[in-house]
Amino acid sequence: MTQRFALMIDPVAADETRDDYADTFTLVDAAAPALSVGELSTQRGDGVFESIGVVDGHAQEVVPHLDRLAHSARLCDLPEPNAQQWHQAIDQAAAGCGKGEAVIKLILSRGIEHGPTPTAWVTAAPAPDFSAVRQRGIRVVTLDRGYDLGAAERAPWLLLGAKTLSYAVNMAALREAHRRDADDAIFLSSDGFVLEAPTASLILRFGDRFVTPAPNGGILHGTTQLSMYEYLATRGLETGYDRIPASDLPRADAAWLVSSVRLAAAVTAIDGHELPVDHALTDELNRYLLSPRD
Amino acid sequence: MTQRFALMIDPVAADETRDDYADTFTLVDAAAPALSVGELSTQRGDGVFESIGVVDGHAQEVVPHLDRLAHSARLCDLPEPNAQQWHQAIDQAAAGCGKGEAVIKLILSRGIEHGPTPTAWVTAAPAPDFSAVRQRGIRVVTLDRGYDLGAAERAPWLLLGAKTLSYAVNMAALREAHRRDADDAIFLSSDGFVLEAPTASLILRFGDRFVTPAPNGGILHGTTQLSMYEYLATRGLETGYDRIPASDLPRADAAWLVSSVRLAAAVTAIDGHELPVDHALTDELNRYLLSPRD
Repeated sequence: MTQRFALMIDPVAADETRDDYADTFTLVDAAAPALSVGELSTQRGDGVFESIGVVDGHAQEVVPHLDRLAHSARLCDLPEPNAQQWHQAIDQAAAGCGKGEAVIKLILSRGIEHGPTPTAWVTAAPAPDFSAVRQRGIRVVTLDRGYDLGAAERAPWLLLGAKTLSYAVNMAALREAHRRDADDAIFLSSDGFVLEAPTASLILRFGDRFVTPAPNGGILHGTTQLSMYEYLATRGLETGYDRIPASDLPRADAAWLVSSVRLAAAVTAIDGHELPVDHALTDELNRYLLSPRD
Repeated sequence: MTQRFALMIDPVAADETRDDYADTFTLVDAAAPALSVGELSTQRGDGVFESIGVVDGHAQEVVPHLDRLAHSARLCDLPEPNAQQWHQAIDQAAAGCGKGEAVIKLILSRGIEHGPTPTAWVTAAPAPDFSAVRQRGIRVVTLDRGYDLGAAERAPWLLLGAKTLSYAVNMAALREAHRRDADDAIFLSSDGFVLEAPTASLILRFGDRFVTPAPNGGILHGTTQLSMYEYLATRGLETGYDRIPASDLPRADAAWLVSSVRLAAAVTAIDGHELPVDHALTDELNRYLLSPRD
């Protein structure tokens, strides 16, 4: 796949059911103007999104991604997306992806300012080549996310459990990590607990147990993390959700950042402290994550 | 003015100087497609903006707004905008505004994903009619912003002093205020200090002294607040920047939310606690804010 692809979706109500939503999709040139300057996604980052990995034309974990899109929409007081309609749009986009790895993005914007309906679209594009990163691993730094662990529950208007288009801080955190000669970051709560990476979930191994920070509203529930836990369970390995103090990070026996497109990247160092890397398990995880999954 | 207006700006380097930048502007239909789906403003709220009030074709406080745009760009590692070029774009947009009140928005986006340059544009549109609100005042509620007062200095990647396009939380806070039968909100730091409103600055009067929270990086420095302070100084009134505990709010002798387009709105109640309203001064302030100012 070398061409980018975009499908505008005329949003229909979640309670509308029919067999075929193809007439609600409009193919647009991904490089050509498609959105007006009145778009609230562009003016205020006001909307929600998902990024889905595609392998050889198969979109991965579509239902968990659609569930999370609906969850984000609910937190943002956006109309509930019609899951069937979006699923068909994803299928159509995936069918155009061909061999190799690609990424499909779902975007649900609040729409045009003062307009009656949301704006919605999916895009598909070739994925960057992450094969070297999956082999080599990544160096990360910890960065304060500014919020304490209780903020999400206390102040739902902070939208901490929603995957919103307001991603400027996530991007700034990645730039800060690069300034510190690292590849990625791990966010910490202001009261010293481990959260997530700007665009990935964190999974740690302590002894034989795999843990990730509890997705209690303060962080996203990672779809790839869920897949990886399913796989680890089939291997008879113990997994769990914990409250993890940042001070536990240096004693981890292994760590990964996992996300839909880069998949499992072993963490080789946190804040300059080297971590053991389990290359065999990382390879095995990525083979699994590259296999067709729904 | 009834037509919306948009001017795409081909960004030129800040060190380029010439008399006329008109050939770097392209007029586009504000309602027609103008931006591609690859725009990082729309995908990630990744960019910065300003909203400028326009009265009878005169754009207000242009230089302070351009200074703040440049400051926001710096915090976000965006190329410095060429102030002359932007000023000319604003002048051209303002010239099309005609009689009455309008709003000009400046948007500087990181551009197309993997693209070489930012995307930049200005829009002009009629302002909502705020005359009744300026007369009647507004009821506000306080909402936790989740960050303590030290977060901005400790963690610059939170972009707390930048006016970024990642405004989903600001919009969610306004929706929460409406749910609580209020018109607007005042953000508090998690350690209990007064910050700002989602789209306005807060000015309080205690006795004969006017105070606003110190813009120490955690909040924006309001251009309208600066104008109001200049006016109050000409009246011989004392103004200052303080660290204001939320517990001081109920004992304020008057309060205003001030912003570039709604201008000065007297706060009539905070969290249901009624506040004295100085109608005469509010009228006077709005007459001043509606007079041509540079």
